[in-house]
Amino acid sequence: MDFDLALSRSILERTPGTLSAMLGGLGPAWTNATEGPDTWSPYTVLGHLIHGERADWMERARIILAQGPERRFTPFDRLAQFRESEGRPLTELLATFAALRADNLATLAAWNLTEQQLSLTGVHPDFGEVTLRQLLSTWVAHDLGHVAQVARVMARQYRDAVGPWRAYLPIMDR
Amino acid sequence: MDFDLALSRSILERTPGTLSAMLGGLGPAWTNATEGPDTWSPYTVLGHLIHGERADWMERARIILAQGPERRFTPFDRLAQFRESEGRPLTELLATFAALRADNLATLAAWNLTEQQLSLTGVHPDFGEVTLRQLLSTWVAHDLGHVAQVARVMARQYRDAVGPWRAYLPIMDR
Repeated sequence: MDFDLALSRSILERTPGTLSAMLGGLGPAWTNATEGPDTWSPYTVLGHLIHGERADWMERARIILAQGPERRFTPFDRLAQFRESEGRPLTELLATFAALRADNLATLAAWNLTEQQLSLTGVHPDFGEVTLRQLLSTWVAHDLGHVAQVARVMARQYRDAVGPWRAYLPIMDR
Repeated sequence: MDFDLALSRSILERTPGTLSAMLGGLGPAWTNATEGPDTWSPYTVLGHLIHGERADWMERARIILAQGPERRFTPFDRLAQFRESEGRPLTELLATFAALRADNLATLAAWNLTEQQLSLTGVHPDFGEVTLRQLLSTWVAHDLGHVAQVARVMARQYRDAVGPWRAYLPIMDR
C-alpha cells in the first residue's frame, strides 16, 4: 500500500485508545511482564512511545520541513523511558501518551502537508536520505509493531499454562 | 505464569474494547488488508473470534464440566467466519463480538469454578486429555495472538512505504 496521509492519521489517532483498552486498569502481573532479561514489558513500551512523541517523530519531521543546513536526525534514544517514566503509574503514562499524541496530530494537521513536502528528505544516521513520507509511514508501522508486541508479551506469560495448545499458538514461539 | 482465573478474565473482558479501539470506524484499506493470498484480514479475524464465542470456548468448557460419556471436543471450524460473517459491516461484527463475550464471561462467573473443576479434563481431537485450566489459558492467549495479528497485518501494508526503516521494524518480516 502506498503512503496516504489520511489513512496514516486514522491509525496514529487510534493507538492511545487501543493501549488504554488493552492496559487500562490491568494488574502488574500483565503490565510488568516481559519475555525475559533485557526485554520490554507493556509498561516499558508505553514509556518508549511517550519518548517518541516528545523527542522523535515530530522533531524529525520538523528537521525535514525546515530544510536547514543540518538535516541529520538525532539518533533515537531507545532507553530514554527507563529514566523518564520509571515509577509513574501506568494510568498516568496512558494519559500522557494520549495527550502528547493528540497535540502532535493537531500540529501535523495544521501543517497541511503537500505531496511536495512529503517528498522532502532528511538524513538518517544509519540509512542516509529518507523522505518525510517514509518517516510518517514508519511512525504508523512503529505504533502497530508495539501494539503487537504488547499483545505478544502478555500472551507468552501463558506459554506453559496452555499445555499442548502451545503447538497451535504461533504467538508463543515465533 | 501459572493460570489465574481473575487475571484471565481481565484479559478476556478487554479484548472487545481493544478491537473496537483499533478497528472501529477504520476504512477498508486497513480492515480488509491481508498478508497475501489465503491469509486473514482484521475483518476475517473478527469473524473467527465471533465463531469462537458461539461454538468453541464455552462449548468445550461445558463438555469438560459435564464429565459425560463423550468428553471429546468437536474440532474448531477455522473457516466458519467466511460463511457466517461475510458481508456484514465491521461495526456490526464488533458489537456482536462484544455482546457474545460479555454473555460468556457472565456465564463463566456464574459457574464459580473451583480449583478441582479447573483440573477436570476433556479430550482434544489432536492432543488428547486437556484440563479446563489449559482451555481457559488458551482462550486468553488466542485473544492476544489475534490482537497481535491484526496489528501485524496492518503494519505490513506499509512494508514498502517505510523505505529503509524496514530493517529496524521486526514486525515487517518476522
